[in-house]
Order: sequence, then C-alpha cells, then structure tokens
Amino acid sequence: MAPITDAYESRVTKDAAIIMRRDPVVYTDLTKDPGPGATREQLENFKRDGFMLLENFLSARETKALLQEVERISHDPEIARRDEAVREPGGDIVRSVFRVHVINKMLSRLSRDRRLVNIARQIVGSEVYVHQSRANLKPGLFGKDFYWHSDFETWHVEDGMPNMRAVSCSILLTSNNDQNGPLMIMPGSHQYFISCIGETPDDHYKKSLRKQEYGVPDPDSLRFLADQNGIRSMTAPAGSIVFFDCNAMHGSNSNISPYPRSNVFFVFNSVDNALGNPKYGLNPRPEHVATREDFTPIKPVEPDYLRDVSKQMDR
Amino acid sequence: MAPITDAYESRVTKDAAIIMRRDPVVYTDLTKDPGPGATREQLENFKRDGFMLLENFLSARETKALLQEVERISHDPEIARRDEAVREPGGDIVRSVFRVHVINKMLSRLSRDRRLVNIARQIVGSEVYVHQSRANLKPGLFGKDFYWHSDFETWHVEDGMPNMRAVSCSILLTSNNDQNGPLMIMPGSHQYFISCIGETPDDHYKKSLRKQEYGVPDPDSLRFLADQNGIRSMTAPAGSIVFFDCNAMHGSNSNISPYPRSNVFFVFNSVDNALGNPKYGLNPRPEHVATREDFTPIKPVEPDYLRDVSKQMDR
Repeated sequence: MAPITDAYESRVTKDAAIIMRRDPVVYTDLTKDPGPGATREQLENFKRDGFMLLENFLSARETKALLQEVERISHDPEIARRDEAVREPGGDIVRSVFRVHVINKMLSRLSRDRRLVNIARQIVGSEVYVHQSRANLKPGLFGKDFYWHSDFETWHVEDGMPNMRAVSCSILLTSNNDQNGPLMIMPGSHQYFISCIGETPDDHYKKSLRKQEYGVPDPDSLRFLADQNGIRSMTAPAGSIVFFDCNAMHGSNSNISPYPRSNVFFVFNSVDNALGNPKYGLNPRPEHVATREDFTPIKPVEPDYLRDVSKQMDR
Repeated sequence: MAPITDAYESRVTKDAAIIMRRDPVVYTDLTKDPGPGATREQLENFKRDGFMLLENFLSARETKALLQEVERISHDPEIARRDEAVREPGGDIVRSVFRVHVINKMLSRLSRDRRLVNIARQIVGSEVYVHQSRANLKPGLFGKDFYWHSDFETWHVEDGMPNMRAVSCSILLTSNNDQNGPLMIMPGSHQYFISCIGETPDDHYKKSLRKQEYGVPDPDSLRFLADQNGIRSMTAPAGSIVFFDCNAMHGSNSNISPYPRSNVFFVFNSVDNALGNPKYGLNPRPEHVATREDFTPIKPVEPDYLRDVSKQMDR
C-alpha cells in the first residue's frame, strides 16, 4: 500500500475527520507593506476570519452596468444553448452562466479589473489566473438553499488543485439582506479541513462520484466549526464584494422573498497552484467548471472600462 | 347556479385574485380602554401590521421549563405512537406534536395562561377556544423552508372557518435569529385575501385536494404584498411571543445553521367564529389539526403554574 501523501485526503473512509490547515492563508509577508490592493489590516482580518467583505466597492454606475449585462446574458438564446449555461429544471430561463471570464467581454474585463486582481495577488502571494467564473441570477420566491461546503474539498478531489492557495471573489449586483438567502460563512473555519465521509474506503478509483453524496461535511464537524466563532451573513448593498478563502465553510439558506439575488463569481488561483490530476482516477470536470487549458497569469486592466461601458448604456 | 355568497372564495378559478378584507382586525373598540392584556398602542399596531412581537414575554425560568417539556415530549415513545405526532421521514424523531393543549398538562395550562388569553380576547373581541395547537422542534442543518401562505385561506376552505376572527400565537423557546429560518411576515398583508388558483373551476366537490398544489399564493400577489411594506423577520430571544392575524402572509426560509428552533403554537379562535362545514364537500381534517369537538371558551389560569413547575424541575 502506498503511503498517505495527501495532507487533505477526503471521501475515502467511513469516518469524518477534522484536519488542521497546513497552508498559509495570506501568502504575502504582512510584516511589510502589502503593496496595492487591500490594507494590511484588511489582510490580517482575512487571515483570521477567512473572508473580507468590502462594502460599496464598485460605484453605482458600474454595478448597474454589470447587472444589466448579467440580465442580458440570462435572456440571450445564444448563451442558453451553450454548455456553460445552467437552466432552471423544465424552463428556458438561465440561472447561471459559467466561464463568463472568457465568453463575455464585459465580465472578462471585470475578471482582470486591477482592483480585484491586486487583492487576489496579495492573498495568494503570486500572479493569478481564473480557475472558475460564473454569473448567477438567483430568483426570488423559489431560491433553494445551498448546504455547507468547502470549495477546496471539491477542487482538491475533483479538480486536482494541490494546495489551499486560491481565493473566491463574489461581486454582489443586488442587495443581499437577511431575508434573500445571503452567503453565510463560518469565520475561522478556513483553518480546518473537514475530511468528508466516503462510501468506498477500499476503492479509490470509483468512477461515478455523485456530488450530492460526496463532499458533504458531517453534522458534528459543522457544529464544531460554528461553535468557534458563530456564523456571519454577507449582507451588504449591491456593488459590495466578498473575498473568501477556498477552504472557508460557507452556504446559504433558501430565498422565499420575492427579491432576487444576482452576483458574479470569480475564483483566482495562484499560478503556482495549477491543477494536477483529479483524485482517485476521476475524470476531469469540464473546462467551463475548472480551467485546465490556460494557466496564463491575468494581465490586469484599469477599471475605467466599466465607467465607459456605463456611460454608453446611459445614452 | 347558486349566487356567490363566500366573500373569501379560493381554489375555484384559473386566475388568482386579490380581495380586500371585509372583517375587522381588532374586534375590541379601540376608542375605549381595551382592558387587561396588550396596550391600546400595541393593539393599534397589530391592526396596522397584522402582528405583534412581544420580546421577553416569559421569564427565563418559564422558557426553560417549557423547552425542557417540549424536548421531553419529542423523545416520549408514547407520544411518538400517537396520530398527533409528526415524525421525520424515515426517522423516529418527533418534529411536531399537535393538540398539545389537550394531551400535555403543562402546555394545556400554557394555552389557558391569562396573559395570552387576555390578548387573544382583545383581538377577536370575544371569548376564545383553541382551534389548533402544536409544539415544534425544528432541527438545525436540515430545517426546510415553509413557503408563503395565509392560514385563514386553509382554515376557511379546509376547515370551514367562517370569518377572519382568529389569532395565532407563537411562543419562542429558542433564540430566533436571521440565520435559523425565523418566521417572516409581510406587514399589512392581512388586509388582502389572496384567492388562490384552483385546478378544477367546474368541480367544487373535488375530493382529494393536495395541499402542495392548492392554497399556494401566486407570485404576482406575493410581490404586490411584499411591495406594500416589505417583509419583517420575527427575530427575538427565547421567551418572546408573536401574535399574528389569521390572514397575515407568512413563511420561513430554510435553516442550514446548526442551531435548532423550537416553539409552541396556539390558534385562538373566537367562540362566535366556530367551524362550519369545509368548502366544496371536502371531508373535515382530523380533530388534532382542527378542533370540532369542543368550542367551549377557555377558562384562563394564572401564570404562577409555570413558576411552580420550573421550581420543581430545578430540584
């Protein structure tokens, strides 16, 4: 039997385990000036909490332009036919569009926005590329809950992401309040890797992992994490952004309120943390869910492109 | 064809309708001293909003005694075998127990607690009896959402309750916060009756109404109601109580937080509003869901019974 060389093994035993994180959280040396992006204090808080909520980060004009673009995409029949589009069951309405950093001009530029890229670079301590991107339109009234999970658990097992050196960025395009199912994060949970229960301890090469059964943290671990520092809801006005660590335990409740939630979501991964093979002989997930073709570092663009777009749309 | 004599007809046409309420909200004359119970201002607010949240209404000792009793009931195998017990699908754990005002001594006395009965009497302007009662233990992590509904719509159609002259009282036994799926109410919604879409316009005598298909308000009406005055979450510490009008539009989001929500729920109906026959030839629902055997007015008891109980349990 081969020695266990994976510090973050998951889905292989009948028992859950809580494993201390071995990777840094903020890779930039915080004893020195962290350079352009977030302040040292913001980065210290990110290190402690595993997230950073920056209210009113985008201007009202930028936010409006982005929301209009995301709504336009969701009604575009060309987009709806693509693999990247996730439609409502039994409906033609597009709820999510993946890989928007490639297939949409405005969102591609947003993914390279210097203000975002600078913060991502500070956190992972290197150049970054986009591992996954998504535009989400979450409907009111029938918005479903999304159970607790660590993104890294999935990316490590299913995508072969080696280490915890990626950061997610959610750009809020509508108000997120206590009633429309905001993102909830357990502060400090990023310091613990929850090794999830797997059904097949002796068969590491199971072909058809079903997502709803695998990668789900156990109740005791969730209670342990929540008891550390409670749960924080990312309630904030449209135009705010949230950076959160790839291993932060997060989820959201349902949204029966009539008010939708829309956002754009980017995962910035370190170019030094590019994907290897998935675990247990799994087939790689599709390119639009986990980029493998292109680990080229992002060349940042100045944010004035959004001001221009916004001006054009006001005419 | 018989003339339409039901002001609150529902589930009979293919279109939804918004019907103005014809009944009073507070039946007591508020130009005079309202007597023992809530203050005139509290009753005026109830008239306007359709609910009244009274924080820390019960003492910490009372709340603790009630929570212990509800937890005890939920683990009582005698109770679990009864029709009144609602178990988790595929589990032995009891999640709700109906008719606790009859089958449990402490909760029977709580249903007659003078402090509660006085307020219920003020609102419906007469003596009251318990139309329905329930003890609920809502689990953390897997608590499901409960979609928007007006209780009166169900009670009118399925139970034959003639008028809007009943008030619900929820006694919070655990903290209700923004994250564990608190009761949400649309303020002012009690002034509008949402006539729900029915599948069988020409068949008023359909036998097997399925709850998930009938009595569900349409999205446009819900948006109309929410746009009046928004949505209020009944977040409050354990020991608080909420009175809400039988026609208030209410629901709750899911609860993926690890923290459970428990409460006791009484519906006080006016003795002048006792049940008639269900609509459309429906069979009456079971006695433990809608009391028909006994419309006798409640004889209130003094609240010191709970203090006594609490003392005994501390020994």
